[in-house]
Amino acid sequence: MPIRVLHVGLGPIGCGIVRQVAARKGFKPVGGVDIDPGKVGRDLGEVAGTGRGLGVKVSAHVEKAIKASKPDVAVLCTSSSLKTVMPQIELLLKAKLPIVSTTEELAYPVGANARLAKRIHQAALKAKKAVLGTGVNPGFTMDALPIMLTAACERVEAIRVERVQDARIRRLPFQRKIGAGLSRDEFEARVQQGSVRHVGLAESVRMIADAFGWKLDKVTDVIAPRIAQAPVASEFLSVAAGRVCGIVQDGTGYRDGTPVIVLHMEAYLGAPETYDAVKITGSPALQMKVAGGVHGDIATAAIAVNSIPKVLKATPGLHTMRDLELPSFYGG
Amino acid sequence: MPIRVLHVGLGPIGCGIVRQVAARKGFKPVGGVDIDPGKVGRDLGEVAGTGRGLGVKVSAHVEKAIKASKPDVAVLCTSSSLKTVMPQIELLLKAKLPIVSTTEELAYPVGANARLAKRIHQAALKAKKAVLGTGVNPGFTMDALPIMLTAACERVEAIRVERVQDARIRRLPFQRKIGAGLSRDEFEARVQQGSVRHVGLAESVRMIADAFGWKLDKVTDVIAPRIAQAPVASEFLSVAAGRVCGIVQDGTGYRDGTPVIVLHMEAYLGAPETYDAVKITGSPALQMKVAGGVHGDIATAAIAVNSIPKVLKATPGLHTMRDLELPSFYGG
Repeated sequence: MPIRVLHVGLGPIGCGIVRQVAARKGFKPVGGVDIDPGKVGRDLGEVAGTGRGLGVKVSAHVEKAIKASKPDVAVLCTSSSLKTVMPQIELLLKAKLPIVSTTEELAYPVGANARLAKRIHQAALKAKKAVLGTGVNPGFTMDALPIMLTAACERVEAIRVERVQDARIRRLPFQRKIGAGLSRDEFEARVQQGSVRHVGLAESVRMIADAFGWKLDKVTDVIAPRIAQAPVASEFLSVAAGRVCGIVQDGTGYRDGTPVIVLHMEAYLGAPETYDAVKITGSPALQMKVAGGVHGDIATAAIAVNSIPKVLKATPGLHTMRDLELPSFYGG
Repeated sequence: MPIRVLHVGLGPIGCGIVRQVAARKGFKPVGGVDIDPGKVGRDLGEVAGTGRGLGVKVSAHVEKAIKASKPDVAVLCTSSSLKTVMPQIELLLKAKLPIVSTTEELAYPVGANARLAKRIHQAALKAKKAVLGTGVNPGFTMDALPIMLTAACERVEAIRVERVQDARIRRLPFQRKIGAGLSRDEFEARVQQGSVRHVGLAESVRMIADAFGWKLDKVTDVIAPRIAQAPVASEFLSVAAGRVCGIVQDGTGYRDGTPVIVLHMEAYLGAPETYDAVKITGSPALQMKVAGGVHGDIATAAIAVNSIPKVLKATPGLHTMRDLELPSFYGG
């Protein structure tokens, strides 16, 4: 019997997950929910671009979709913000559904979100179901994978993670999110608004620190523009020299005043090399590199789908990638 | 309060673990057991080379050592063979001690060992304690770490793991274990005896297949000598051209007649590059490399020590690296 999946949120990531759930062994998309009137009432497969009808109409109402589809699990992909998705999570737990969410702030709730996380944990205990926030970043490349590598170390003094991407191969919303095409001033304004940034570095820093048992004095998250030295273009955008072609963002965790966890991201049109790398200063010193990087959209969808069977097996409550069983591909 | 550790088995790996437990925050070596009359009665720190006395005498008797030291956990490093360590594991569980063992065949018990594993699981349930077999290989570089990487994939068609080591930097017993210095005939005879081989490839192949939910038709484990093309020497050994300088070993899992899991090891004096690499054929295709490799002895000891707090938290029973929480360095 395949696992019956309800898809809540049909943006690019949500639709990517529908496509995988439809194509992969062991899963079946049984319901879809979105608020976009352009999607409601249409076939879920058509909306998600699966290449075939799924015989399921996209609904505007979570409760109705649950009743109609009898899902085993909900995949929630509506927002990066934990505050925004709180009512949705509470609704799904009320219906006693386990949840896998790509909400970045749920991957490892920090700061004000820690209180919301406690509420989710309590609601999940009451529902006797498990909840997980995950994705490629946060959730994998800049936290879970580097954490895993340190298991081979008798001593870790510092860890540096680099995620460098040539944004030309990414979709337009991603290119917009990194500020490609803006002037310096426009970039700064968007950073102030919060519309240009990667969400999750503070979460990843804390996940690493907690795994090691490190107390941090301070966590910083600093965003800078990358300025095009020469004109550069993608399929969607052209950027003149002197304008912003992307973002450089550093999440840093300090211990006794020293930066011991550095998460360095560069995503810009024309980056000469795309890769993920981890450098551990310690014993043994270790360096790992994923040449070509871990593709953001496919991987985020894959990690969410691969996590479904693990969440179904997990104890009730809110989990993170740190305490669930070892992440892995699931072949049905 | 540091975790009180009883060390059973004081060979190279066992002593490496004592050194880490003595040096690392959060742990304390409180007892040591070995059958070697040259070690019994001496200070554990002296035997293990910690550079200082630990005020603990090595005992020949597990029960006496437990009574004298009141440990929280036992680390067992006496043999690669599960059959050999069975009575030791049963004794430790009778004393209600959780166990972390570097016994290769316990990392993921296969074949005839699966029955022994069931017995251990039952005894661990009865004792209400957790048991784990782990190490760098099996337990990490050729199974848990590659499995982890596949979490980013929506499809895995095949996985190839390479572990290539210049054995010149390893200790003498390791150089002997890979047959360095033997003639071709001597090498073949030692392979037949079982004294020249890496233990754990079949275990790692099965761990990967089970993580993916793959049924395999066949698992093979093939050992070949690496012949020195030119004279090569380590600190301990000289090998003439035409003689064996090390081992090439392949563990292969077949699915529908196709080799889908290939674990390729090369360990020989003079390997031009030492590295661990993973290549995933699928979507996305992924390539990961740890340049310089993950050092065998330090890492095996580190993984064992880092696993201790996880085993203390785990549910009763026999665990593997697949079902415990995410492996990580533990900083006390």
